[in-house]
Amino acid sequence: MNNERYDIAIVGSGPAGLSAAINAKIRNKSIILFGIKELSNKVMKAPIVNNYLGFYNITGKEFKEKFKKHLEFMDISVTTEKINTIYSMGDYFALDVSGKMYEAKTVILATGIEYTKPLKGEEELLGKGVGYCATCDAPLYKGKVVTIIGYNKEAEADANYVSELAGKTYYIPVYKDELDLKDNIEIIKDRVIGIQGNEKVEKVILKNGSIDTDGVFVLKDSVSPGQLVPGLEMENNHIKVDLNMATSIKGCFAAGDCTGKPYQYIKSAGQGQVAALNAVSYLDSNKN
Amino acid sequence: MNNERYDIAIVGSGPAGLSAAINAKIRNKSIILFGIKELSNKVMKAPIVNNYLGFYNITGKEFKEKFKKHLEFMDISVTTEKINTIYSMGDYFALDVSGKMYEAKTVILATGIEYTKPLKGEEELLGKGVGYCATCDAPLYKGKVVTIIGYNKEAEADANYVSELAGKTYYIPVYKDELDLKDNIEIIKDRVIGIQGNEKVEKVILKNGSIDTDGVFVLKDSVSPGQLVPGLEMENNHIKVDLNMATSIKGCFAAGDCTGKPYQYIKSAGQGQVAALNAVSYLDSNKN
Repeated sequence: MNNERYDIAIVGSGPAGLSAAINAKIRNKSIILFGIKELSNKVMKAPIVNNYLGFYNITGKEFKEKFKKHLEFMDISVTTEKINTIYSMGDYFALDVSGKMYEAKTVILATGIEYTKPLKGEEELLGKGVGYCATCDAPLYKGKVVTIIGYNKEAEADANYVSELAGKTYYIPVYKDELDLKDNIEIIKDRVIGIQGNEKVEKVILKNGSIDTDGVFVLKDSVSPGQLVPGLEMENNHIKVDLNMATSIKGCFAAGDCTGKPYQYIKSAGQGQVAALNAVSYLDSNKN
Repeated sequence: MNNERYDIAIVGSGPAGLSAAINAKIRNKSIILFGIKELSNKVMKAPIVNNYLGFYNITGKEFKEKFKKHLEFMDISVTTEKINTIYSMGDYFALDVSGKMYEAKTVILATGIEYTKPLKGEEELLGKGVGYCATCDAPLYKGKVVTIIGYNKEAEADANYVSELAGKTYYIPVYKDELDLKDNIEIIKDRVIGIQGNEKVEKVILKNGSIDTDGVFVLKDSVSPGQLVPGLEMENNHIKVDLNMATSIKGCFAAGDCTGKPYQYIKSAGQGQVAALNAVSYLDSNKN
């Protein structure tokens, strides 16, 4: 259990989340930034960026390096644990990170827009054998059968780790790339139809068969914010925000692609800044 | 007369205006960018900037150089003529730049927030001897008496130019700095109370006296947007915008400090991008 209550929990390490983090840090707030090691798969894949004022003719990879250096300069680290659910508790938020609980007075959602539709059975069996954080929950499956549905190359490292503890590990890649997996992992090249089970996970159903399994890790870039934060008001598949980047939940702000089009880096970074500064105002106005 | 009708006229060369310009240019729109040679006095004066994602430990002057290079890379130039008034003509805008008329299908206001209150008589006598663009209107005052009320150091170059044509030039600095003016300019160190005249400018009233003059140039950083664009809806002294950066006038967008707090660079740059992309959508939807 980690019971430190952060001032601001930032979810997402794309331009919106990073901009929120540096602005909150400058304002002396305690923050926790959830994201991925590579910061943003979308930025990483950008061939050339010319429309971010101050940078031109820069590749996504170079851009990511600039971001990394900015984080280092500000002494901000990225927590790579995956969040299952964020609960609004009235005057604070509880972030359920499989088995651990984090607390924060405010939350900034910067989750991006690359949501994949949940698999059939995924939501019903979440926490009952389905999880989003393999490295968090792997110890629960010591000697058991685990299936990993990987949406990106990063999932492979998680699979390798899981295979050290699990009795049997299956890996189902939902992308095309060379796989870098340990020999004891069985690779399944088939399409996932859904996850099945009564009370707890029993099977992964494939187009051409099924796998008996005790646990399933669905490792994708992000889950939809409506799924992540129960009660959050959405509008046309985006988080509803006002000009201050406030959402329908008190103390919960949002920024970047998850709040709507255009999907652009500097717009996201600008909104991340606005979200952070308004979260700071919110914190300051709640001080007694 | 310049009768080319631009796709987008951008007013202001701070981060919001520049970001709008590069984004509009990338989308192949014809643009005219009104601003100042130094781009932004506010950026120029910033000691150290750390909260613009990707840049840290950078001075305002270095930042301005990055912006300049970005503009050069995109082949965008800054038009330094000062706009008196922007009129919405229904399906296009007419920009009155003392004696010249520019036309644009859309306008993006990025005028910043450093408005100075108009002087007494300034608005009433605008175009009747009061002007904002000395280099544009100086020829009207050949051999006559001209008074320049300068709010910043840039006004000095304008005063020097005016003095080559005018019969007599007075310069009233509204700032503290060493002055770099020609010998034939008379410097008045007094406080301006207002501008007086029937039908046309006659006098500048000072705290300790007055000056008989034919013309007055008020050279300040920016005029208020409500003054610049008749009919524009304001809210708490800022331009009222929606999440798309659309103002109350069809085809007129706004971005940056002029739309509200926080007054921050990357927020402005993000909004400039959003304004440009929505102006582009507006243009595309009006094509027949």
